[in-house]
Amino acid sequence: MQPVIQGRIFKFGDNINSDIIIAGRHLIYIDPERLSQHAFEVLGEGFGAKLRSFDILVAGRNFGCGSAREQAATAIKGLGIKAVVACSFARTFYRNAINDGLPIMECPALYPVVEEGDAIRIDLAAGKIHHLEKEYPFPKMPDSVRAILELGGLAAYLKAELAKGQMAKSQES
Amino acid sequence: MQPVIQGRIFKFGDNINSDIIIAGRHLIYIDPERLSQHAFEVLGEGFGAKLRSFDILVAGRNFGCGSAREQAATAIKGLGIKAVVACSFARTFYRNAINDGLPIMECPALYPVVEEGDAIRIDLAAGKIHHLEKEYPFPKMPDSVRAILELGGLAAYLKAELAKGQMAKSQES
Repeated sequence: MQPVIQGRIFKFGDNINSDIIIAGRHLIYIDPERLSQHAFEVLGEGFGAKLRSFDILVAGRNFGCGSAREQAATAIKGLGIKAVVACSFARTFYRNAINDGLPIMECPALYPVVEEGDAIRIDLAAGKIHHLEKEYPFPKMPDSVRAILELGGLAAYLKAELAKGQMAKSQES
Repeated sequence: MQPVIQGRIFKFGDNINSDIIIAGRHLIYIDPERLSQHAFEVLGEGFGAKLRSFDILVAGRNFGCGSAREQAATAIKGLGIKAVVACSFARTFYRNAINDGLPIMECPALYPVVEEGDAIRIDLAAGKIHHLEKEYPFPKMPDSVRAILELGGLAAYLKAELAKGQMAKSQES
């Protein structure tokens, strides 16, 4: 994850649920690219492919509601989406996204002012989103969460922590 | 409603819920055209408008699940959609559609063989859907349900029944 994420947005409404993001029958996959081939497919032919031409998803309230499935975040990453900015997230989606290294932030003030195709820039360290000369703050992430995102997810983070521990141990001996 | 409905299909997947069809904040409207302007708007700019170029929706399982709101059927009618064929419907959507005069039928066998843009022809009296030289049967509707659909919904049906009663009464006197 880069500390600054920028690109064109696609705008969803409220209550986009995890059945919409990735249908249950595709949960047999774990590979982001494979999952992304089925992302949003319930919305008709080419919907997922269209999303590949955008960089960031902006959504209304309760994004990721419905069944708790971590593949929803993975499938979005597989589409090449770099971040999701919503008015609010369903709890399980929120945590799954962090675990999977998909940057997400709640910024209700941004929602009404953006339109599909607009360019935004997200500064993670500053906790600000830039859009048309204006800035929209969002709650800064705890350092621990940013560390997970920067390393690409919880698994990578734990591997790095383990490696650190082993290094410390080998220096002791 | 015509006894034969034909046209090009748009194909959805499973579990398209009523929040997706029409967001809760638009339930203040009852006019089909007004509702249809907001139909499917949570799926991004132009999604509802795109559906206007299709005649019939085909969907997977559990179409219309989620909050029970009769405006979901009304909004679909407002888009100019003449029928919805799904593998299965959520119960409340099913009954709301009949009440509102939107023809719907369950035909799981059709689902895997059609693609977006295909032409189909639905023969309501025969209980058959024609697609590429083949026929797919669906359970015939009871006469009472067909009568409601033919008159454009439950309100129109009740008005017609009342008028019949009054006519019978005036003939008696």
